[in-house]
Amino acid sequence: MKNEYQIFGIRAVIEAIHAGKTIDKIFIQKGLQGGLFQELHTLLKSHQINTSYVPVEKLNRLTKKNHQGVVANISPIEFHDLENLTMKVIESGETPLFLILDQVSDVRNFGAIIRTAECTGVHGIIIQKNGSAPVTADTVKTSAGAVFNVPICKVDHIKDAIFYMQASGIEVVGATEKTDNEIYDVNFTTPAAIVMGAEDVGISSSVLKILNHKAKLPMFGSIGSLNVSVACAVFLYEVVRQRK
Amino acid sequence: MKNEYQIFGIRAVIEAIHAGKTIDKIFIQKGLQGGLFQELHTLLKSHQINTSYVPVEKLNRLTKKNHQGVVANISPIEFHDLENLTMKVIESGETPLFLILDQVSDVRNFGAIIRTAECTGVHGIIIQKNGSAPVTADTVKTSAGAVFNVPICKVDHIKDAIFYMQASGIEVVGATEKTDNEIYDVNFTTPAAIVMGAEDVGISSSVLKILNHKAKLPMFGSIGSLNVSVACAVFLYEVVRQRK
Repeated sequence: MKNEYQIFGIRAVIEAIHAGKTIDKIFIQKGLQGGLFQELHTLLKSHQINTSYVPVEKLNRLTKKNHQGVVANISPIEFHDLENLTMKVIESGETPLFLILDQVSDVRNFGAIIRTAECTGVHGIIIQKNGSAPVTADTVKTSAGAVFNVPICKVDHIKDAIFYMQASGIEVVGATEKTDNEIYDVNFTTPAAIVMGAEDVGISSSVLKILNHKAKLPMFGSIGSLNVSVACAVFLYEVVRQRK
Repeated sequence: MKNEYQIFGIRAVIEAIHAGKTIDKIFIQKGLQGGLFQELHTLLKSHQINTSYVPVEKLNRLTKKNHQGVVANISPIEFHDLENLTMKVIESGETPLFLILDQVSDVRNFGAIIRTAECTGVHGIIIQKNGSAPVTADTVKTSAGAVFNVPICKVDHIKDAIFYMQASGIEVVGATEKTDNEIYDVNFTTPAAIVMGAEDVGISSSVLKILNHKAKLPMFGSIGSLNVSVACAVFLYEVVRQRK
Protein backbone atom coordinates (compact mmCIF):
# COMPACT_ATOMS: atom_id res chain seq x y z
CA MET A 1 0.00 0.00 0.00
CA LYS A 2 2.89 2.32 0.80
CA ASN A 3 3.95 2.72 -2.82
CA GLU A 4 0.52 4.02 -3.79
CA TYR A 5 1.68 7.43 -2.56
CA GLN A 6 5.24 7.41 -3.88
CA ILE A 7 6.61 8.67 -7.19
CA PHE A 8 10.17 8.48 -8.58
CA GLY A 9 12.28 10.07 -11.26
CA ILE A 10 12.95 13.77 -11.85
CA ARG A 11 10.55 14.14 -14.79
CA ALA A 12 7.68 12.35 -12.99
CA VAL A 13 8.05 14.55 -9.92
CA ILE A 14 8.17 17.76 -12.02
CA GLU A 15 4.97 16.67 -13.78
CA ALA A 16 3.27 15.87 -10.45
CA ILE A 17 4.06 19.35 -9.13
CA HIS A 18 2.76 20.98 -12.31
CA ALA A 19 -0.40 18.85 -12.00
CA GLY A 20 -1.01 20.34 -8.56
CA LYS A 21 -0.29 17.20 -6.48
CA THR A 22 0.60 17.89 -2.84
CA ILE A 23 4.11 16.59 -2.18
CA ASP A 24 4.60 15.75 1.44
CA LYS A 25 8.36 15.27 1.26
CA ILE A 26 10.98 14.74 -1.40
CA PHE A 27 14.26 12.83 -1.11
CA ILE A 28 17.05 13.79 -3.55
CA GLN A 29 20.38 12.06 -4.02
CA LYS A 30 23.28 14.17 -2.75
CA GLY A 31 25.32 15.71 -5.59
CA LEU A 32 22.63 15.30 -8.25
CA GLN A 33 23.35 17.61 -11.25
CA GLY A 34 22.01 18.51 -14.70
CA GLY A 35 19.49 20.76 -16.40
CA LEU A 36 16.41 18.74 -15.43
CA PHE A 37 17.56 18.72 -11.82
CA GLN A 38 17.90 22.52 -11.95
CA GLU A 39 14.32 22.76 -13.19
CA LEU A 40 13.14 20.56 -10.28
CA HIS A 41 15.24 22.52 -7.79
CA THR A 42 13.62 25.80 -8.87
CA LEU A 43 10.12 24.29 -8.58
CA LEU A 44 10.83 22.91 -5.08
CA LYS A 45 11.97 26.37 -3.94
CA SER A 46 8.99 28.20 -5.40
CA HIS A 47 6.51 25.67 -3.94
CA GLN A 48 8.34 25.53 -0.56
CA ILE A 49 8.43 21.73 -0.62
CA ASN A 50 10.07 19.87 2.29
CA THR A 51 13.31 18.51 0.74
CA SER A 52 16.02 16.18 2.08
CA TYR A 53 19.35 15.52 0.35
CA VAL A 54 20.33 11.94 1.16
CA PRO A 55 22.88 9.23 0.16
CA VAL A 56 21.79 6.95 -2.71
CA GLU A 57 21.47 4.03 -0.24
CA LYS A 58 18.55 5.77 1.45
CA LEU A 59 16.76 6.08 -1.90
CA ASN A 60 17.44 2.43 -2.67
CA ARG A 61 15.77 1.52 0.60
CA LEU A 62 12.73 3.68 -0.22
CA THR A 63 12.11 1.98 -3.56
CA LYS A 64 13.43 -0.82 -5.73
CA LYS A 65 12.31 1.05 -8.87
CA ASN A 66 14.63 3.13 -11.08
CA HIS A 67 14.42 6.35 -9.06
CA GLN A 68 17.08 8.38 -10.95
CA GLY A 69 18.04 10.02 -7.65
CA VAL A 70 14.58 11.36 -6.77
CA VAL A 71 11.77 9.87 -4.63
CA ALA A 72 8.75 11.94 -3.59
CA ASN A 73 6.00 11.13 -1.11
CA ILE A 74 2.64 12.33 -2.38
CA SER A 75 0.08 13.28 0.25
CA PRO A 76 -3.09 11.15 0.05
CA ILE A 77 -5.10 14.27 0.93
CA GLU A 78 -5.32 17.93 -0.01
CA PHE A 79 -4.65 20.26 2.89
CA HIS A 80 -7.04 23.08 3.77
CA ASP A 81 -6.30 26.76 4.22
CA LEU A 82 -6.60 27.69 7.91
CA GLU A 83 -8.22 31.07 7.38
CA ASN A 84 -10.81 29.85 4.87
CA LEU A 85 -11.70 26.87 7.05
CA THR A 86 -12.01 28.95 10.23
CA MET A 87 -14.29 31.46 8.51
CA LYS A 88 -16.42 28.68 7.04
CA VAL A 89 -16.87 27.04 10.45
CA ILE A 90 -17.73 30.33 12.18
CA GLU A 91 -20.23 31.19 9.45
CA SER A 92 -21.87 27.74 9.76
CA GLY A 93 -23.25 28.76 13.15
CA GLU A 94 -21.83 25.69 14.90
CA THR A 95 -19.63 26.17 17.97
CA PRO A 96 -16.10 25.77 16.57
CA LEU A 97 -13.96 22.90 17.83
CA PHE A 98 -10.40 22.69 16.50
CA LEU A 99 -7.53 20.41 17.36
CA ILE A 100 -3.94 21.66 17.20
CA LEU A 101 -1.14 19.06 17.19
CA ASP A 102 2.16 20.46 18.38
CA GLN A 103 4.73 18.00 16.96
CA VAL A 104 2.84 14.73 17.35
CA SER A 105 5.31 12.62 15.39
CA ASP A 106 4.09 9.00 15.53
CA VAL A 107 2.04 8.05 12.48
CA ARG A 108 -0.16 5.58 14.41
CA ASN A 109 -0.95 8.17 17.09
CA PHE A 110 -1.71 10.71 14.38
CA GLY A 111 -4.08 8.29 12.63
CA ALA A 112 -5.83 7.35 15.88
CA ILE A 113 -6.29 11.05 16.74
CA ILE A 114 -7.83 11.80 13.33
CA ARG A 115 -10.26 8.90 13.82
CA THR A 116 -11.36 10.20 17.23
CA ALA A 117 -11.59 13.76 15.87
CA GLU A 118 -14.03 12.56 13.20
CA CYS A 119 -16.16 10.78 15.81
CA THR A 120 -16.33 13.88 18.04
CA GLY A 121 -17.20 16.40 15.34
CA VAL A 122 -13.88 18.27 15.26
CA HIS A 123 -14.06 20.93 12.51
CA GLY A 124 -10.37 20.89 11.63
CA ILE A 125 -6.95 19.62 12.68
CA ILE A 126 -3.95 21.93 12.53
CA ILE A 127 -0.42 20.55 12.18
CA GLN A 128 2.92 22.22 11.54
CA LYS A 129 4.89 21.68 8.31
CA ASN A 130 8.03 20.63 10.15
CA GLY A 131 8.13 17.99 12.88
CA SER A 132 4.66 16.51 12.40
CA ALA A 133 3.86 12.93 11.46
CA PRO A 134 3.28 12.84 7.69
CA VAL A 135 -0.02 11.83 6.13
CA THR A 136 0.91 8.42 4.71
CA ALA A 137 -0.82 5.18 3.81
CA ASP A 138 -0.34 4.16 7.47
CA THR A 139 -2.12 7.32 8.61
CA VAL A 140 -5.01 6.49 6.29
CA LYS A 141 -5.17 2.96 7.73
CA THR A 142 -4.93 3.83 11.46
CA SER A 143 -7.45 6.65 10.97
CA ALA A 144 -9.91 4.06 9.56
CA GLY A 145 -10.29 6.41 6.58
CA ALA A 146 -11.27 9.40 8.75
CA VAL A 147 -8.36 11.35 7.24
CA PHE A 148 -10.55 11.86 4.16
CA ASN A 149 -13.40 13.35 6.25
CA VAL A 150 -11.71 15.75 8.67
CA PRO A 151 -10.12 18.90 7.18
CA ILE A 152 -6.41 19.17 7.99
CA CYS A 153 -4.45 22.43 7.80
CA LYS A 154 -0.68 22.42 7.53
CA VAL A 155 0.80 25.67 8.80
CA ASP A 156 4.31 27.11 8.90
CA HIS A 157 4.13 27.88 12.63
CA ILE A 158 1.72 26.55 15.25
CA LYS A 159 2.10 29.80 17.19
CA ASP A 160 0.78 31.89 14.31
CA ALA A 161 -2.18 29.52 13.96
CA ILE A 162 -2.94 29.98 17.68
CA PHE A 163 -2.77 33.79 17.37
CA TYR A 164 -5.13 33.59 14.41
CA MET A 165 -7.59 31.37 16.33
CA GLN A 166 -7.53 33.73 19.30
CA ALA A 167 -8.13 36.74 17.06
CA SER A 168 -11.15 34.87 15.67
CA GLY A 169 -12.67 34.49 19.14
CA ILE A 170 -11.59 30.89 19.72
CA GLU A 171 -10.12 30.04 23.14
CA VAL A 172 -7.04 27.84 22.96
CA VAL A 173 -6.69 25.17 25.68
CA GLY A 174 -3.51 23.14 26.12
CA ALA A 175 -3.49 19.57 27.45
CA THR A 176 -0.58 19.64 29.87
CA GLU A 177 0.27 18.39 33.33
CA LYS A 178 2.08 21.70 33.99
CA THR A 179 -0.95 23.28 35.68
CA ASP A 180 -3.20 22.90 38.74
CA ASN A 181 -6.27 23.27 36.54
CA GLU A 182 -8.21 20.07 35.81
CA ILE A 183 -9.98 19.44 32.52
CA TYR A 184 -13.35 19.57 34.34
CA ASP A 185 -12.65 23.18 35.42
CA VAL A 186 -12.52 24.43 31.83
CA ASN A 187 -15.62 25.73 30.03
CA PHE A 188 -15.74 24.10 26.60
CA THR A 189 -19.20 25.38 25.62
CA THR A 190 -17.70 28.40 23.85
CA PRO A 191 -15.53 28.22 20.67
CA ALA A 192 -12.42 26.18 21.51
CA ALA A 193 -9.22 24.74 20.13
CA ILE A 194 -7.40 22.00 22.02
CA VAL A 195 -3.61 21.68 21.80
CA MET A 196 -1.96 18.26 22.20
CA GLY A 197 1.83 18.09 22.53
CA ALA A 198 4.58 15.77 21.34
CA GLU A 199 4.77 12.18 22.64
CA ASP A 200 8.00 12.77 24.57
CA VAL A 201 8.08 16.40 25.75
CA GLY A 202 4.47 17.54 25.51
CA ILE A 203 3.53 21.04 24.37
CA SER A 204 6.58 23.18 23.56
CA SER A 205 7.36 25.95 26.03
CA SER A 206 6.84 28.78 23.53
CA VAL A 207 3.33 27.48 22.80
CA LEU A 208 2.52 26.98 26.51
CA LYS A 209 3.08 30.72 27.08
CA ILE A 210 0.38 31.88 24.65
CA LEU A 211 -2.47 29.52 25.60
CA ASN A 212 -5.74 30.87 27.03
CA HIS A 213 -6.04 27.90 29.41
CA LYS A 214 -4.02 24.89 30.50
CA ALA A 215 -5.74 21.76 31.75
CA LYS A 216 -4.63 18.36 33.00
CA LEU A 217 -6.31 14.99 33.46
CA PRO A 218 -6.54 13.55 36.99
CA MET A 219 -3.89 10.86 37.40
CA PHE A 220 -3.74 7.77 39.63
CA GLY A 221 -0.97 5.19 39.78
CA SER A 222 2.74 5.68 39.24
CA ILE A 223 3.15 5.82 35.44
CA GLY A 224 1.52 9.26 35.42
CA SER A 225 1.17 9.70 31.67
CA LEU A 226 -1.22 8.57 28.96
CA ASN A 227 -0.67 7.85 25.31
CA VAL A 228 -1.29 11.11 23.41
CA SER A 229 -4.13 9.66 21.30
CA VAL A 230 -5.84 8.39 24.44
CA ALA A 231 -5.46 11.74 26.28
CA CYS A 232 -6.75 13.56 23.20
CA ALA A 233 -9.90 11.39 23.15
CA VAL A 234 -10.65 12.16 26.79
CA PHE A 235 -10.34 15.91 26.09
CA LEU A 236 -12.52 15.75 22.98
CA TYR A 237 -15.24 13.77 24.76
CA GLU A 238 -15.22 16.25 27.63
CA VAL A 239 -16.10 18.90 25.03
CA VAL A 240 -18.86 16.66 23.65
CA ARG A 241 -20.23 16.09 27.18
CA GLN A 242 -20.29 19.78 28.05
CA ARG A 243 -21.89 20.77 24.74
CA LYS A 244 -24.71 18.21 24.94
CA MET B 1 13.41 -8.31 23.86
CA LYS B 2 10.98 -11.00 22.72
CA ASN B 3 13.24 -13.89 23.65
CA GLU B 4 13.40 -12.74 27.25
CA TYR B 5 10.07 -14.49 27.76
CA GLN B 6 10.70 -17.65 25.73
CA ILE B 7 12.12 -21.01 26.80
CA PHE B 8 12.88 -24.09 24.70
CA GLY B 9 13.53 -27.78 25.15
CA ILE B 10 11.41 -30.36 26.98
CA ARG B 11 13.56 -30.50 30.12
CA ALA B 12 13.74 -26.69 30.46
CA VAL B 13 9.99 -26.33 30.15
CA ILE B 14 9.34 -29.09 32.71
CA GLU B 15 11.69 -27.34 35.14
CA ALA B 16 9.98 -23.99 34.54
CA ILE B 17 6.57 -25.48 35.36
CA HIS B 18 7.94 -27.11 38.52
CA ALA B 19 9.50 -23.76 39.49
CA GLY B 20 6.04 -22.17 39.34
CA LYS B 21 6.58 -20.02 36.23
CA THR B 22 3.35 -18.98 34.45
CA ILE B 23 3.38 -20.39 30.94
CA ASP B 24 1.24 -18.30 28.62
CA LYS B 25 1.29 -20.74 25.72
CA ILE B 26 3.34 -23.75 24.63
CA PHE B 27 4.08 -24.91 21.08
CA ILE B 28 4.90 -28.61 20.59
CA GLN B 29 6.05 -30.33 17.43
CA LYS B 30 3.39 -32.63 15.99
CA GLY B 31 4.19 -36.31 16.54
CA LEU B 32 6.72 -35.75 19.35
CA GLN B 33 7.25 -38.99 21.35
CA GLY B 34 9.27 -40.39 24.25
CA GLY B 35 9.29 -40.69 28.03
CA LEU B 36 10.29 -37.09 28.71
CA PHE B 37 7.54 -35.88 26.39
CA GLN B 38 5.02 -38.00 28.31
CA GLU B 39 6.14 -36.34 31.54
CA LEU B 40 5.65 -32.89 29.96
CA HIS B 41 2.28 -33.91 28.52
CA THR B 42 1.01 -34.97 31.96
CA LEU B 43 2.19 -31.71 33.50
CA LEU B 44 0.50 -29.61 30.78
CA LYS B 45 -2.79 -31.42 31.40
CA SER B 46 -2.66 -31.07 35.18
CA HIS B 47 -1.74 -27.37 34.95
CA GLN B 48 -4.31 -26.66 32.17
CA ILE B 49 -1.70 -24.96 30.02
CA ASN B 50 -2.75 -23.58 26.62
CA THR B 51 -1.02 -25.99 24.16
CA SER B 52 -0.70 -25.98 20.36
CA TYR B 53 0.65 -28.89 18.30
CA VAL B 54 2.40 -27.38 15.26
CA PRO B 55 4.68 -28.38 12.33
CA VAL B 56 8.42 -28.10 13.03
CA GLU B 57 8.65 -25.12 10.63
CA LYS B 58 6.53 -23.04 12.99
CA LEU B 59 8.95 -23.81 15.86
CA ASN B 60 11.91 -22.92 13.64
CA ARG B 61 10.32 -19.55 12.99
CA LEU B 62 9.79 -18.96 16.72
CA THR B 63 13.43 -19.55 17.61
CA LYS B 64 16.77 -20.29 15.98
CA LYS B 65 17.89 -22.13 19.11
CA ASN B 66 17.87 -25.95 19.51
CA HIS B 67 14.23 -26.26 20.61
CA GLN B 68 13.94 -30.10 20.61
CA GLY B 69 10.33 -29.74 19.48
CA VAL B 70 9.14 -27.52 22.36
CA VAL B 71 8.91 -23.72 22.68
CA ALA B 72 7.06 -22.06 25.58
CA ASN B 73 6.08 -18.43 26.09
CA ILE B 74 6.55 -17.43 29.72
CA SER B 75 4.24 -14.70 30.99
CA PRO B 76 6.16 -11.62 32.18
CA ILE B 77 3.63 -11.32 35.03
CA GLU B 78 1.87 -13.47 37.59
CA PHE B 79 -1.90 -13.47 37.22
CA HIS B 80 -4.18 -12.76 40.18
CA ASP B 81 -7.05 -14.81 41.51
CA LEU B 82 -10.34 -13.03 40.76
CA GLU B 83 -12.06 -13.90 44.04
CA ASN B 84 -9.11 -12.94 46.25
CA LEU B 85 -8.60 -9.68 44.38
CA THR B 86 -12.28 -8.71 44.49
CA MET B 87 -12.45 -9.38 48.24
CA LYS B 88 -9.27 -7.38 48.84
CA VAL B 89 -10.62 -4.40 46.89
CA ILE B 90 -14.00 -4.47 48.66
CA GLU B 91 -12.31 -4.72 52.06
CA SER B 92 -10.03 -1.77 51.23
CA GLY B 93 -13.02 0.55 51.45
CA GLU B 94 -12.40 2.08 48.02
CA THR B 95 -15.23 2.05 45.47
CA PRO B 96 -14.33 -0.89 43.22
CA LEU B 97 -13.56 -0.22 39.56
CA PHE B 98 -12.84 -3.25 37.37
CA LEU B 99 -12.26 -3.59 33.66
CA ILE B 100 -13.39 -6.71 31.78
CA LEU B 101 -11.93 -7.32 28.31
CA ASP B 102 -14.11 -9.60 26.19
CA GLN B 103 -11.71 -10.89 23.53
CA VAL B 104 -9.59 -7.80 22.94
CA SER B 105 -6.99 -9.50 20.76
CA ASP B 106 -4.53 -6.83 19.57
CA VAL B 107 -1.44 -6.67 21.77
CA ARG B 108 -0.97 -2.91 21.23
CA ASN B 109 -4.57 -2.17 22.18
CA PHE B 110 -4.21 -4.41 25.24
CA GLY B 111 -1.03 -2.58 26.31
CA ALA B 112 -2.59 0.86 25.78
CA ILE B 113 -5.65 -0.18 27.82
CA ILE B 114 -3.50 -1.40 30.73
CA ARG B 115 -1.63 1.93 30.71
CA THR B 116 -4.88 3.92 30.87
CA ALA B 117 -6.26 1.58 33.55
CA GLU B 118 -3.22 2.31 35.73
CA CYS B 119 -3.70 6.07 35.27
CA THR B 120 -7.40 5.91 36.20
CA GLY B 121 -7.02 3.77 39.32
CA VAL B 122 -8.57 0.57 37.97
CA HIS B 123 -8.34 -2.15 40.67
CA GLY B 124 -8.07 -5.09 38.29
CA ILE B 125 -8.38 -6.19 34.66
CA ILE B 126 -10.16 -9.43 33.80
CA ILE B 127 -9.36 -11.33 30.60
CA GLN B 128 -10.39 -14.74 29.33
CA LYS B 129 -7.87 -17.58 28.89
CA ASN B 130 -8.85 -18.17 25.27
CA GLY B 131 -9.10 -15.43 22.65
CA SER B 132 -7.37 -12.65 24.57
CA ALA B 133 -4.19 -10.87 23.55
CA PRO B 134 -1.30 -12.50 25.44
CA VAL B 135 0.89 -10.66 27.91
CA THR B 136 4.12 -10.41 25.91
CA ALA B 137 7.14 -8.14 25.75
CA ASP B 138 5.11 -5.95 23.36
CA THR B 139 2.34 -5.66 25.96
CA VAL B 140 4.92 -4.60 28.53
CA LYS B 141 6.24 -1.95 26.13
CA THR B 142 2.92 -0.49 24.95
CA SER B 143 1.64 -0.43 28.54
CA ALA B 144 4.69 1.70 29.48
CA GLY B 145 5.34 -0.84 32.23
CA ALA B 146 1.84 -0.46 33.74
CA VAL B 147 1.31 -4.20 33.29
CA PHE B 148 3.47 -4.69 36.40
CA ASN B 149 1.25 -2.34 38.47
CA VAL B 150 -2.33 -3.31 37.60
CA PRO B 151 -3.52 -6.75 38.78
CA ILE B 152 -4.69 -8.93 35.88
CA CYS B 153 -6.96 -11.96 36.34
CA LYS B 154 -7.18 -14.64 33.67
CA VAL B 155 -10.46 -16.53 33.88
CA ASP B 156 -11.91 -19.55 32.08
CA HIS B 157 -15.12 -17.74 31.15
CA ILE B 158 -15.88 -14.01 31.12
CA LYS B 159 -19.55 -14.78 31.88
CA ASP B 160 -18.70 -16.52 35.16
CA ALA B 161 -16.52 -13.55 36.14
CA ILE B 162 -19.45 -11.21 35.47
CA PHE B 163 -21.81 -13.34 37.58
CA TYR B 164 -19.23 -13.31 40.37
CA MET B 165 -18.87 -9.50 40.17
CA GLN B 166 -22.64 -9.04 40.26
CA ALA B 167 -22.95 -11.38 43.25
CA SER B 168 -20.34 -9.19 44.98
CA GLY B 169 -22.45 -6.05 44.50
CA ILE B 170 -20.58 -4.70 41.49
CA GLU B 171 -22.67 -3.37 38.57
CA VAL B 172 -21.40 -4.47 35.17
CA VAL B 173 -21.62 -1.88 32.37
CA GLY B 174 -20.94 -2.77 28.74
CA ALA B 175 -19.52 -0.30 26.22
CA THR B 176 -21.65 -0.96 23.16
CA GLU B 177 -23.45 0.99 20.46
CA LYS B 178 -26.36 -1.48 20.72
CA THR B 179 -28.32 0.73 23.14
CA ASP B 180 -30.04 4.12 23.37
CA ASN B 181 -28.35 4.79 26.69
CA GLU B 182 -25.46 7.27 26.62
CA ILE B 183 -22.45 6.94 28.88
CA TYR B 184 -23.47 10.14 30.70
CA ASP B 185 -26.77 8.50 31.76
CA VAL B 186 -24.98 5.81 33.79
CA ASN B 187 -24.21 6.26 37.48
CA PHE B 188 -20.59 5.24 38.04
CA THR B 189 -20.33 6.41 41.68
CA THR B 190 -21.24 2.93 42.95
CA PRO B 191 -19.04 -0.21 42.52
CA ALA B 192 -18.63 -0.82 38.79
CA ALA B 193 -16.99 -3.05 36.19
CA ILE B 194 -16.75 -1.88 32.59
CA VAL B 195 -16.79 -4.39 29.73
CA MET B 196 -14.97 -3.60 26.47
CA GLY B 197 -15.51 -5.89 23.47
CA ALA B 198 -13.39 -7.25 20.64
CA GLU B 199 -11.95 -4.91 18.00
CA ASP B 200 -14.11 -6.31 15.20
CA VAL B 201 -17.42 -7.49 16.68
CA GLY B 202 -17.62 -5.73 20.05
CA ILE B 203 -19.04 -7.45 23.13
CA SER B 204 -20.22 -11.01 22.41
CA SER B 205 -23.99 -11.53 22.39
CA SER B 206 -24.01 -13.95 25.33
CA VAL B 207 -22.20 -11.35 27.46
CA LEU B 208 -24.49 -8.50 26.30
CA LYS B 209 -27.47 -10.41 27.74
CA ILE B 210 -26.19 -10.50 31.32
CA LEU B 211 -24.98 -6.89 31.71
CA ASN B 212 -26.56 -4.57 34.28
CA HIS B 213 -26.28 -1.60 31.91
CA LYS B 214 -25.27 -0.87 28.34
CA ALA B 215 -23.89 2.52 27.36
CA LYS B 216 -22.64 4.13 24.18
CA LEU B 217 -20.55 7.17 23.37
CA PRO B 218 -22.12 9.98 21.34
CA MET B 219 -20.90 9.75 17.73
CA PHE B 220 -20.50 12.40 15.05
CA GLY B 221 -19.19 11.89 11.52
CA SER B 222 -19.53 8.86 9.31
CA ILE B 223 -16.89 6.40 10.60
CA GLY B 224 -18.99 5.78 13.70
CA SER B 225 -16.50 3.73 15.70
CA LEU B 226 -13.51 4.40 17.88
CA ASN B 227 -10.39 2.36 18.52
CA VAL B 228 -11.13 0.13 21.55
CA SER B 229 -8.29 1.57 23.66
CA VAL B 230 -9.55 5.10 22.96
CA ALA B 231 -13.18 4.22 23.81
CA CYS B 232 -12.00 2.47 26.97
CA ALA B 233 -10.17 5.64 28.09
CA VAL B 234 -13.28 7.78 27.63
CA PHE B 235 -15.32 5.34 29.75
CA LEU B 236 -12.69 5.17 32.50
CA TYR B 237 -12.35 8.95 32.67
CA GLU B 238 -16.13 9.32 32.91
CA VAL B 239 -15.91 7.16 36.05
CA VAL B 240 -13.08 9.35 37.36
CA ARG B 241 -15.12 12.51 36.66
CA GLN B 242 -18.23 11.23 38.41
CA ARG B 243 -16.30 9.98 41.45
CA LYS B 244 -14.41 13.24 42.00
